[in-house]
Amino acid sequence: VSDRVLVTGATGFFGRHALGPLRERGLEVHTAGRTDGIDLLLPGAAREVMARVRPTHLLHLAWYVEHGRFWTAPDNLAWVGASLELLRAFTESGGRRAVLVGTCAEYEEHQSGPCREGVTALRPTTLYASAKHGLHVVAQGYARQEGVSLAWARPFFCFGPHEAPARLVPSVARALLAGEQVRVTHGRQLRDFMAVEELGDAFAALVASDVEGPVNLASGRGFALRDLVGLVGDVVGRPELIVYGGLESRPGESQLLVADTTRLGEEVGWGPPEDVRAGVERAVAWWREQDGAAASLR
Amino acid sequence: VSDRVLVTGATGFFGRHALGPLRERGLEVHTAGRTDGIDLLLPGAAREVMARVRPTHLLHLAWYVEHGRFWTAPDNLAWVGASLELLRAFTESGGRRAVLVGTCAEYEEHQSGPCREGVTALRPTTLYASAKHGLHVVAQGYARQEGVSLAWARPFFCFGPHEAPARLVPSVARALLAGEQVRVTHGRQLRDFMAVEELGDAFAALVASDVEGPVNLASGRGFALRDLVGLVGDVVGRPELIVYGGLESRPGESQLLVADTTRLGEEVGWGPPEDVRAGVERAVAWWREQDGAAASLR
Repeated sequence: VSDRVLVTGATGFFGRHALGPLRERGLEVHTAGRTDGIDLLLPGAAREVMARVRPTHLLHLAWYVEHGRFWTAPDNLAWVGASLELLRAFTESGGRRAVLVGTCAEYEEHQSGPCREGVTALRPTTLYASAKHGLHVVAQGYARQEGVSLAWARPFFCFGPHEAPARLVPSVARALLAGEQVRVTHGRQLRDFMAVEELGDAFAALVASDVEGPVNLASGRGFALRDLVGLVGDVVGRPELIVYGGLESRPGESQLLVADTTRLGEEVGWGPPEDVRAGVERAVAWWREQDGAAASLR
Repeated sequence: VSDRVLVTGATGFFGRHALGPLRERGLEVHTAGRTDGIDLLLPGAAREVMARVRPTHLLHLAWYVEHGRFWTAPDNLAWVGASLELLRAFTESGGRRAVLVGTCAEYEEHQSGPCREGVTALRPTTLYASAKHGLHVVAQGYARQEGVSLAWARPFFCFGPHEAPARLVPSVARALLAGEQVRVTHGRQLRDFMAVEELGDAFAALVASDVEGPVNLASGRGFALRDLVGLVGDVVGRPELIVYGGLESRPGESQLLVADTTRLGEEVGWGPPEDVRAGVERAVAWWREQDGAAASLR
């Protein structure tokens, strides 16, 4: 019998980029979400899907993720409960290996170096990050007791096709593609960025591994936001339209949020195979096509 | 308008001893539990009771607490979700002050001194303690965001009327009352014990205060278990029936689990008003009456 992975949130930004890499690793992929007619927030839904699919593996990406609202939405509370019900149903139906998804925002802000799993202090300051962190505490206790192999993915920053249009890379790329000036902050904040296609591959590698506990999913490289924005400008061919410092940065914003990727590299055996430019080229090409198609429909 | 407190788990060991002290502090007490026809594990139940009662205060004691099973029961997962739904419904119906209940088992085992809130490391090793700790992480993030005053009670050990019969004080008291020999461990483990009537009063004091964050509910005094057991023997008048060292203690058992009660004393303004002997006398009298009544029915 082959290994079967159930993926929740499979149509989301992360999920859609993880399905191919999971199949490439020999996993039979099943999905559970609203487009499959399954609402995981409904009691009993998880049990029903587990009884039908009987997955050996679980990649649980579903959550409330609406851009700009997910940090504070009370839906975060419901997703804690639903995620625990999902993990319990998975375990009780014989599941063996689960990857749940946290966030780099679990780490204490204002680090002076890369965030390392199990070493860097956790101090979530938003409801979203608190909900994710609290879920991890409970899920870890349950998985340990039940003998389920559990990894807790902490993705850092990424960009690419199907990203929410209001986010940094899409908003800059689309403005430049339209020939419009775009104002950004000073851009000296360092962030760990990678292309979402690579993040999807890293998720699949983590699912297929037996590494347990928290694992940063990231490149391990810090980019100044201005360099990332500049790269978008270069790829579009309109760097002169970018106005650095034309936006105030958020007060108290972290100046450095970069992952230590020792666990991902040495234990999972995954490293980012490409330069970030290739990802930016794909993202720009995708937005060009999207907006071009939209324009030609007008 | 008076302050109205909604108490969940009001018929439980802690809850029944908190109702009087809450009323003494001027709070109008409402209860929500199975004996009121309310199952808080059912979706929507919390919202319904909040709409009806519109409590200003919440004391949430309900949980899965069956003796011997609560440490590992998967019901712990469902209670995390239900507790978050309860806190959300309370908040959205205008609630202002909530006390949720954790456990001294959240603290890392094998301390060399009293456990202090915010200082002693938290490292739950059981599902029960993990579920409680994870709930606190999420609830704290939500309460902070919503401006609800939230305290997280960490009760230590207690005994008294209505305790589960298999627990230490009832099992020793009932055996001695029946004239039977009773075997206990060496009993040199130090624990922070108080009478449940006092714990109920401490809960009420915490609800009526505006102290936020984790607060140990305990006496601040360490008792060797052999001294507590000996006190039961003295009160019953049959100390010679106790065989110390007649039971193995649990391997790896913590030798010291005592609370620092600085927050409870200085911030909440509550201290244990009595010697532990008075509580033991009440407990023994209660078990004598229970078992006597049962015997006279035979």
